[in-house]
Amino acid sequence: MSTPLIAPAAMFLLGAVALVRGPVGDDRPRARELGVRPGVFPTGPLNAITDVPGVRVGQVTLIEGDDVRTGVTAILPHGGDLFREKVPGAVFVGNAFGKLAGSTQVRELGTIETPIILTNTLSVGTAVGAVVRYTLDRPGNDDVRSVNALVGETNDGGLNDIRGGHVSVGHVLDAIRNASAGPVAEGSVGAGTGCEAFGWKGGIGTSSRVLPDRLGGWKLGVLVQANFGGVLTIGGTPVGQELGRYAYKDAVGQGEGTDRSGDGSCMVVVATDAPIDARDLERLAARGIFGLARTGSSFSHGSGDFAIAFSTAPGLRVRHGDSAVRSREILPSDAASPLFQAALEATEEAVENAILRASTTTGNGRTVEGIPIDRVRQILRARGITEDRHP
Amino acid sequence: MSTPLIAPAAMFLLGAVALVRGPVGDDRPRARELGVRPGVFPTGPLNAITDVPGVRVGQVTLIEGDDVRTGVTAILPHGGDLFREKVPGAVFVGNAFGKLAGSTQVRELGTIETPIILTNTLSVGTAVGAVVRYTLDRPGNDDVRSVNALVGETNDGGLNDIRGGHVSVGHVLDAIRNASAGPVAEGSVGAGTGCEAFGWKGGIGTSSRVLPDRLGGWKLGVLVQANFGGVLTIGGTPVGQELGRYAYKDAVGQGEGTDRSGDGSCMVVVATDAPIDARDLERLAARGIFGLARTGSSFSHGSGDFAIAFSTAPGLRVRHGDSAVRSREILPSDAASPLFQAALEATEEAVENAILRASTTTGNGRTVEGIPIDRVRQILRARGITEDRHP
Amino acid sequence: MSTPLIAPAAMFLLGAVALVRGPVGDDRPRARELGVRPGVFPTGPLNAITDVPGVRVGQVTLIEGDDVRTGVTAILPHGGDLFREKVPGAVFVGNAFGKLAGSTQVRELGTIETPIILTNTLSVGTAVGAVVRYTLDRPGNDDVRSVNALVGETNDGGLNDIRGGHVSVGHVLDAIRNASAGPVAEGSVGAGTGCEAFGWKGGIGTSSRVLPDRLGGWKLGVLVQANFGGVLTIGGTPVGQELGRYAYKDAVGQGEGTDRSGDGSCMVVVATDAPIDARDLERLAARGIFGLARTGSSFSHGSGDFAIAFSTAPGLRVRHGDSAVRSREILPSDAASPLFQAALEATEEAVENAILRASTTTGNGRTVEGIPIDRVRQILRARGITEDRHP
Amino acid sequence: MSTPLIAPAAMFLLGAVALVRGPVGDDRPRARELGVRPGVFPTGPLNAITDVPGVRVGQVTLIEGDDVRTGVTAILPHGGDLFREKVPGAVFVGNAFGKLAGSTQVRELGTIETPIILTNTLSVGTAVGAVVRYTLDRPGNDDVRSVNALVGETNDGGLNDIRGGHVSVGHVLDAIRNASAGPVAEGSVGAGTGCEAFGWKGGIGTSSRVLPDRLGGWKLGVLVQANFGGVLTIGGTPVGQELGRYAYKDAVGQGEGTDRSGDGSCMVVVATDAPIDARDLERLAARGIFGLARTGSSFSHGSGDFAIAFSTAPGLRVRHGDSAVRSREILPSDAASPLFQAALEATEEAVENAILRASTTTGNGRTVEGIPIDRVRQILRARGITEDRHP
Repeated sequence: MSTPLIAPAAMFLLGAVALVRGPVGDDRPRARELGVRPGVFPTGPLNAITDVPGVRVGQVTLIEGDDVRTGVTAILPHGGDLFREKVPGAVFVGNAFGKLAGSTQVRELGTIETPIILTNTLSVGTAVGAVVRYTLDRPGNDDVRSVNALVGETNDGGLNDIRGGHVSVGHVLDAIRNASAGPVAEGSVGAGTGCEAFGWKGGIGTSSRVLPDRLGGWKLGVLVQANFGGVLTIGGTPVGQELGRYAYKDAVGQGEGTDRSGDGSCMVVVATDAPIDARDLERLAARGIFGLARTGSSFSHGSGDFAIAFSTAPGLRVRHGDSAVRSREILPSDAASPLFQAALEATEEAVENAILRASTTTGNGRTVEGIPIDRVRQILRARGITEDRHP
Repeated sequence: MSTPLIAPAAMFLLGAVALVRGPVGDDRPRARELGVRPGVFPTGPLNAITDVPGVRVGQVTLIEGDDVRTGVTAILPHGGDLFREKVPGAVFVGNAFGKLAGSTQVRELGTIETPIILTNTLSVGTAVGAVVRYTLDRPGNDDVRSVNALVGETNDGGLNDIRGGHVSVGHVLDAIRNASAGPVAEGSVGAGTGCEAFGWKGGIGTSSRVLPDRLGGWKLGVLVQANFGGVLTIGGTPVGQELGRYAYKDAVGQGEGTDRSGDGSCMVVVATDAPIDARDLERLAARGIFGLARTGSSFSHGSGDFAIAFSTAPGLRVRHGDSAVRSREILPSDAASPLFQAALEATEEAVENAILRASTTTGNGRTVEGIPIDRVRQILRARGITEDRHP
Repeated sequence: MSTPLIAPAAMFLLGAVALVRGPVGDDRPRARELGVRPGVFPTGPLNAITDVPGVRVGQVTLIEGDDVRTGVTAILPHGGDLFREKVPGAVFVGNAFGKLAGSTQVRELGTIETPIILTNTLSVGTAVGAVVRYTLDRPGNDDVRSVNALVGETNDGGLNDIRGGHVSVGHVLDAIRNASAGPVAEGSVGAGTGCEAFGWKGGIGTSSRVLPDRLGGWKLGVLVQANFGGVLTIGGTPVGQELGRYAYKDAVGQGEGTDRSGDGSCMVVVATDAPIDARDLERLAARGIFGLARTGSSFSHGSGDFAIAFSTAPGLRVRHGDSAVRSREILPSDAASPLFQAALEATEEAVENAILRASTTTGNGRTVEGIPIDRVRQILRARGITEDRHP
Repeated sequence: MSTPLIAPAAMFLLGAVALVRGPVGDDRPRARELGVRPGVFPTGPLNAITDVPGVRVGQVTLIEGDDVRTGVTAILPHGGDLFREKVPGAVFVGNAFGKLAGSTQVRELGTIETPIILTNTLSVGTAVGAVVRYTLDRPGNDDVRSVNALVGETNDGGLNDIRGGHVSVGHVLDAIRNASAGPVAEGSVGAGTGCEAFGWKGGIGTSSRVLPDRLGGWKLGVLVQANFGGVLTIGGTPVGQELGRYAYKDAVGQGEGTDRSGDGSCMVVVATDAPIDARDLERLAARGIFGLARTGSSFSHGSGDFAIAFSTAPGLRVRHGDSAVRSREILPSDAASPLFQAALEATEEAVENAILRASTTTGNGRTVEGIPIDRVRQILRARGITEDRHP
C-alpha cells in the first residue's frame, strides 16, 4: 500500500486557527454571508460546533496522487480523559444504510467514552482500532479492557479510491491529537474530503446557536459530514431545481439529470452545554436528522443518516466505575424545546455551509464541481435573500 | 353530558363528493392553487390520500354551542374486512408526547387490522372501545376476542372543551361508516375541527403523489392532522416570520409574540399501493415525520408526532389466522427511494393544505384565525411564487 | 348490558388487609411454602410488590352468572397525585401481540403519570377513559388537558365473556380507589380472574426482594398478570412435563396434549425504591421479561409480554410543568446489576405464586383447573425441594 | 507485536470433522450425555448450528505463551457469496454493554451480507477490517464500495492479554476460509478460548432442534459465545449454588464468593431454514436472549448480550442491487411459535454445552477451572437427572 502524503498536522492546526473558512486561499462564502439565516436564534461567535465550550475538532485530509481523496474528522466532547469522564450521549438513526460503530452501547448506557470519529465507509474498522488504541495508551488507563469506539462514516467512493484503505491508524490518531477549539475548517477537508452532496461537492460543515437568556442561554453546535442528496433548497429556495440538478430529474422527464443526486449519507454531530440527559439527547439528535429535511434531503434507501448528540455539562459526566448515588443537575424535558429548535436550525445551516464551502474536486477519475457561488447568489437574490437582508 | 349536534353523515358525504375544498361556501385555496408545488413528482387526480385506490376517509365534525369543536377522522386502508384481511403497516415515532394506541402491536406484527382513527387526546379510550366494538360486530367475527385498535390524536383543548368528553362511540362508528373514496374535506373538519398550527387555525390536510412509470408508477397519499407549530414556511418561504407569528418570537426579543406557536402535535398517515413490507413501511412513515420539518415544525417537547404507513397491495395482505407458507410479491428496499421522496413531498403539501384550508374558528372562549390568504399570496408572490408559476 | 355483581370494595380491602393469600378460605400455598426459593436474595416481609414503600395495589374482581370472569388490578406508584408528581418509568416489550396503551409516551418522556391498570384485552379503551377521568377529576387538575393512561391487558376470553365488555369505568375507578399498601391477593382475583397459564388456572402473583445493605439495601417488587404458557418449571423442576401438560405435547407425539398451553400473555410490573432513572428502569423491565423464561414461558407469537418498571424514589419525581434545572440523586448504571438480579428472581417467583394460588374456575362454558398442589408438592419433593429445605 | 502461534487451519478442520467434541483427547461431556435435555423438541443429528443445511462454522484458536488466549469464530449462513446473495437477518439487543458492529444496518435493511464474526472486545475493529477486505477481494466484487461487517464480541481479558491486540486480519480470514459444515468444536476454542462463565471456564457451545413435521419440520440451530455469569442452573438444577459458586454469594453473606461471576457477556447466533422474514427473525433472536435466563444468567449491567438470527431459506435471499418486484415464499408470523420454542431450548442447551465442554485454562496470570464434571453429574443425579433418564 502506498504511503499517503498526509497534510501535516501543524499546517491544519494553523489553518484552523487562522481561518474560519478553512484551506488557505479559498474565498467561498458560508451561508450567512449570502444572507441565508435559517431559523430564529442567533449563532455563537464562530458559528461552529466549537462555540460549545470544551468541544474540540481535529481533521486530517488525505489527498494523494489521482485517487486518494479522503480523511478523518474527530470531535472531542471535552479536553480531558473521555474514558474516565464520560459524557452523556445518544444516537438517533434516521436511515441506517451505514456502518456506525458503537451505537448500541451508547443507547444502552447513555454515555460516550471516546472521541467521535468520522471517516469513510470502508475505514470504520481501522478507526475503531485506532480509538481503542488511543484509549488504552492514555496515562492511567493500564487496566482498561473494554472501549466503545464511536465511529461514523459516509461513502466517498465516488472521488476516492475507497477500496484502497488509505486511512491508517496513524491518521485517526493524528486527527484526535490535532483536535482544538476555535474555528473549524469546512468543505473538502477531513472526513469530507471526498464527499458529494445534491450533485455538487459536499463535505464538512458546521454551525451553532446560542439560546436567549430567558431560555437558558445554552449553546448548541452542529457538525455535519454531508454526502447526501435530494432536491436542494438553500434558505428555502429551490436552488437545486433552479440549477437543473436534483434527484429524480430524469424520471420526471425534465431532461438528462442526475438521478443519483438522491443517494448518499449524512452524519450529524450535535453538541450542547445544556445539562440534558441521554434520553433528551436522543431526542435532540432526532432533530438533527429532521433538520436535514430542510435542505431537501430525499432520505433515500441507500443513505446512512445518523445523528450523535452529547452534553458537555460537567455535572452530568459519568466517572468510570462510579457506583454511588450521585447528585446530578438536570434540565427537565419541559425545557428542552428551544434546544430542539436550535438543533434544527444549526443542522440546516451546517449542511448549507458544507456545500457552499466545498470546492471542485477531481479524484478517482471523476470531477465533482463545487456549487457555483455566483449562480446561487443570483438565485437567492431573485427570492429576496441578499447579504444585507438581516443587518 | 350534552347531546352534540353531530353534522349528519349524509351531508358530509355529499360535501366530500361535491367539493374538493370541503365545507360548502369556503373558498380558501389549497397550496397548489397559490403556486406552491413541493418537490418533483406529480400529484394524483384528487391530490388526496384517496388517490391510492381502495383508501377511504370518513369524518365526523362536532360543533356544538360555544365550546365543542372536535371530531373524528377515520382512514380505512381498504373497503373489505380489515380484520380478516390485514394490511402491512408500520408506525414511526417522531416525538411521543402523544397517546397513540395500538402502536406496539403494529410494530411487532407489521400489520394493521382496523380502521385508523384520529381524534382528540382525551377521547382515545372512547375511540379504542368503538373500534373494538366495530370489529366485534362485523359479520363473521363472532369468534374474535382480540382487536388491536389503532387510534391517534392531537390536543384540541385550545378551542374545544376537551375535558368534556364529547366524542362518543357513535361518532367514531359514524366516521368509519361514512368513509368513502373521493375528495377529502380539509381544514376545520373531523379530527381537525379544533386544531391549531403555527399560531393559526390548523386541521386536516391531504396530498398525493404518483411516481413516474419508470419508477414503478406507484401511488402514495398522505393525510395529516396538523396541530403543531414552529416557524412556518410555505413553499420554502418564511411566511411565519413575514406575518410576525412564529415560535420563540418573544424570546428572541422581536416584540410580543406567540411563543406557544411552537407547541402541538401532528399525526401523519401515509398510504401507498406499492407492495412494500412492514419494514419499509416503517421507513416510509419516518419520511412522513421528516417531511414536517419542511414546513418549519419545531418538533417541540410537547409534540406528539407519529406517522402511520400502510400498503394496500392485495398480495401483501395477511389473512387472519393464516399459518401456511405464502407467496408474496414484494418490492425490494432498493426500489423504495422514490416512495420516500414522495412521502416527504406529500406530507409537506398536506400540512400546507391543512393550514390554508382552515377557517377562523371560535370555541372554548378563544378565537384562532385562519391564516390570512391574501397576505400569504402576497408574501409568496414577492418570492416569485405565483399561481401560474408552473403552467 | 348486564349489571355485573361487582365484589364490594370494602370486602376486598378487608380481604387484602387480613390475608396474604387473598380470598377467604383458600389455603393454596405460595411457592415459598413449598420450598421453592428462586435466586439468592431475601424477600421483603410481605413478599409482594407492596414491600416497596408507597406502592399500592387495588383489585376489583368481576364474577357474575356463568360467563363473567374478569376484573381490574391497579398499581399506584405512590399515594400522592401521580399526575402532579410523576415517577420515572419505562416499558420493555417482550412480545407485543398485546394492546398496552400509553407505552410510547412513557418511552419518550421516561415518566408515568397515572395509576397502572391491568384488565382484559377488550377493555383497554374503557380503562383508558377511566384513568383519564380519574386524573381530570382530582382536586387541582382543573387545567389538565392531556393524560397518558398506562393500561395493560391479557386475554381472558377462555373463561370470560370478553366480548360482552363487562368492565366499566366504575370498576376501574373502584380498583384505583381501593388501592392500598399491605398484602396483595393472588390467583383468580382482579385482572387475573379469568387468566390461564401453562394449561392451568393463572392470575395475579407477586413477590419481592430486598438487596443486602452492601448492595444498597434497595427494595424491589414484582406483580404479574400471568396468562401465558409453555413448558412449566417450578423451582427449575419440569412440573409441566411431569404432569403431562405442556406446550407442543401433541406435536412431539406424546399423547393428546394441550398445544394451546403455549399461548397467552403476561404483564409484569416492577417497582423499586432505588433511585434509578428511566433508562435503567427500561433495562430493569427487560429483566422482568427475561425472568418469565425461568418459568418455562414459550414466548409464543400470540403472547403480549410487556414489563413496566418504575422507581418510587422521591428525588426522581418530575413535578408537572417543571422547567428549571433540578438536582437529582441518581444511582449510576454501574450499581444496577443487583436490581436486575432481583427482578429476575421476583418475576419467576411471582409467576409461580400466580399459578399456585389460582383455584379451579368455571366460566364461559369451560373449566380450567387450578394446578394440583399435592401433585406439585410430590414432584418437587422427588427433586429434593421440600418445605424445610432452606430453614 | 509478537507473532502468535496460530493453530494451523488444517488441524482445526480435521479436528472439527473428526470430533463432535472438539479438541482431540478431550472427553468432557455435552449436556445431553448427562441426561440434560432442555425442552420438548428433538435435536438434529449433530446437535449443532450446522444441522441447518448450508451453515458453516470456522474457528481459529490463539494460544501463545502465557498470555494469549483468544480467537475467532466465524458463522457463514451459506456457502455462496453472502454479499451477492444476502440472507434475511436480525439482531436483538438483550443488554448492549458490548461493541457489536453492523447491527444498525441489519435492523434497517433486514439483511446480513457477510460472515458473522465473533472475537474479543478489543479486536472488533480488526475483524471489521478483515470482513471488509474478505468481501472486496471476492471474485466479482470489484465494484463493491460498501460492506456491512457484522462482528460480535465478548471480553476475554481475564485470561487473555486482550490489550495486546493479538487477533490479526489473517486470523479472521482464516476462520472464514476454514468454515465448514459438520461438527462444531465447543468449549475453549475460537472466540471462546478465553471465555469464562458463571465462575467457570466458558466458551463456544452449540445445539439444535428439529420441529416435528406437523409444525413444518424446520431446523434451527444456535451457537453461543458464553462469557457471562449469574446463578448457574443446568437442567433446572441449581448447580451454581450446590457448587458454592454463584453471583452475589458474598453479598448475601454466605461466605467468600465470586461476586464477579455475575459479570460478562453472551453472543447468541440463531440459524434456521424456516422461511421467516427479518421481522420474525428479530423476534426469534429475542428468544435466544430469553433462553439465557434459563441457565441462570443475571443479565448484569456490564453484559453485552446480543442475539443475531438469520434464515437460510433460498427464496428469501436478497440479490445485491435487486430492485424489481419479487415473489417470496414466507412463513406467516402465526406459524413462528414453534421456532421460538426451539430457539429457547437450543440456546439453553448451547450454553450448557459451552460450560461443560470447556477445560481448565491458565492465561494472563490466572487459572479458571472447567466445571467439575463429576460433581455436576452427582448433583444432577441427586435431582433425578441421569444419563439414561430419557432413553
